[in-house]
Amino acid sequence: MSTTSTPASRHNISPYAQALSCDHYYHLGLDTDMDLQALFGDVKYFVMMGSPARAETFAEVMANAFVEQGLPKPTVMRLGKTERYSMFKCGSVISVSHGMGGPSLHILMNEVAKLCNHVGIIDTVRWIRLGTSGGCGVAPGTVVCTTQAINDEIKPCWRTVQLGKVFEIPTDVLDMQFVDDIIASAPEDIPVVKGKTMAADDFFEGQGRTDGALTPWYTEEDKINFLHRLHDAGVRNIEMESVALMGFCQRAKIPAACVCVTLVNRLEGDQITSTKRQLAKYNEYSIRVVSNFIATTQAKTAH
Amino acid sequence: MSTTSTPASRHNISPYAQALSCDHYYHLGLDTDMDLQALFGDVKYFVMMGSPARAETFAEVMANAFVEQGLPKPTVMRLGKTERYSMFKCGSVISVSHGMGGPSLHILMNEVAKLCNHVGIIDTVRWIRLGTSGGCGVAPGTVVCTTQAINDEIKPCWRTVQLGKVFEIPTDVLDMQFVDDIIASAPEDIPVVKGKTMAADDFFEGQGRTDGALTPWYTEEDKINFLHRLHDAGVRNIEMESVALMGFCQRAKIPAACVCVTLVNRLEGDQITSTKRQLAKYNEYSIRVVSNFIATTQAKTAH
Repeated sequence: MSTTSTPASRHNISPYAQALSCDHYYHLGLDTDMDLQALFGDVKYFVMMGSPARAETFAEVMANAFVEQGLPKPTVMRLGKTERYSMFKCGSVISVSHGMGGPSLHILMNEVAKLCNHVGIIDTVRWIRLGTSGGCGVAPGTVVCTTQAINDEIKPCWRTVQLGKVFEIPTDVLDMQFVDDIIASAPEDIPVVKGKTMAADDFFEGQGRTDGALTPWYTEEDKINFLHRLHDAGVRNIEMESVALMGFCQRAKIPAACVCVTLVNRLEGDQITSTKRQLAKYNEYSIRVVSNFIATTQAKTAH
Repeated sequence: MSTTSTPASRHNISPYAQALSCDHYYHLGLDTDMDLQALFGDVKYFVMMGSPARAETFAEVMANAFVEQGLPKPTVMRLGKTERYSMFKCGSVISVSHGMGGPSLHILMNEVAKLCNHVGIIDTVRWIRLGTSGGCGVAPGTVVCTTQAINDEIKPCWRTVQLGKVFEIPTDVLDMQFVDDIIASAPEDIPVVKGKTMAADDFFEGQGRTDGALTPWYTEEDKINFLHRLHDAGVRNIEMESVALMGFCQRAKIPAACVCVTLVNRLEGDQITSTKRQLAKYNEYSIRVVSNFIATTQAKTAH
């Protein structure tokens, strides 16, 4: 626990949290009285995604990806409590669910950043969010690697509020080489593009859908015009977390990537029309892109 | 499925969703090709709360509360998929998890409102969110029933964005008698107060905590002043969902209550210091207040 008293680094880690005799990572079910160094000291990647089921699947796929690259197969371990998030360790990779929406992801990122700082990996760790999204002018099944996150007002910033005051944080990707490396390593059968990602705080009206519960204050025509406006601005997919991810990682100076497969082309409709089998395949795409990138990168270091 | 073609009612239910030949409630794992009437036609209360574990506990406590009031014990059934939310049916009560934060709750409310409209219960159903919160000048263990939700800029409104434009929706409670009835029925050993509830999109800086990961742009003194400002404005607890709940229910004209127990008095500190046993007891408080209210109300109707 020697890193606990490290002074504020370039990562802007709060001195208040570091001064606590025991810091409870309440939503993870971990605290600094535990030997976190033993569990997390070797971690190189935190991979975050919406659902607990996907986080478990990712950890298992990751273990097999290491084997395919001639590396030893790590045992997948469940860590912490499962009430809020589900966390799995697979060797040097943590797979963890973040729920839906920026606020849920944001709580996770705060506790994970404190954890990374506490165990001394914050200068080297990389974060990746993977998941599903709506496409904007790309075919269902296309994986979009985010170059910049755009908020629901079509601005490249994350809105954070401190004591009632609103601040806007830039949402550019901190390390584009990291994103390019992920794209370069993608399996050949998976279509991968670079593009901006729009994040809304809402699945329905915030994303211009008309199939929400309440009558929207816009027409189908307004909606299509809006989606074309997004496409013209370089947006290739729409989800709910990238703005919080890139905004937080800008403040924390942690390199992060956002790798999301699209399930629908929103320029053509709101509801998902792919078959269950197609959706299952698309779901695997972002998982395979990320696990393949990590395994091949680790193999290069090991050999 | 006779209600599918009902024209837009006073609940502002979207005609677009109603016109779909099959509406997929994607995040619930339900769709309108299923016989939803058989499952949901008798539902009187949707009770929503953060975690899947709590949703299951609530359904079980609810079943026993019916028995205590001399009513038959319903079988608790799990409905839909569990990837995003976990939903349980206990007689006329649905218990469902909503995850953390307004956006996650908002997706659930959209799909539940469409469901309530589809099965013809939207004119009679009542929604209750229960959960935990930080207290503002009340002792840990106090249950706060919300009179008005306040956003992170200390304004009584919910920010919703449509096609890039921001709208502010009022967040007053639609039916104060409903809230008063819940308070009047509370078990005598549980302290219950009325008050405003502040909702932030963030657990840490948005709520004025200093134990988040990043160095906040305020001092401990600023923080205490802010919390006193909230208290002076009538705020008695702080959480992350009440603004979305009350804003959505204002638009949908569905009576909703927000019943949250406080785990810490934020005027005295940020981290939770109660023992595990105390916390377990406090956690039960909001569950007991709500289950007791529903069971006694249903018993009055039955006898």
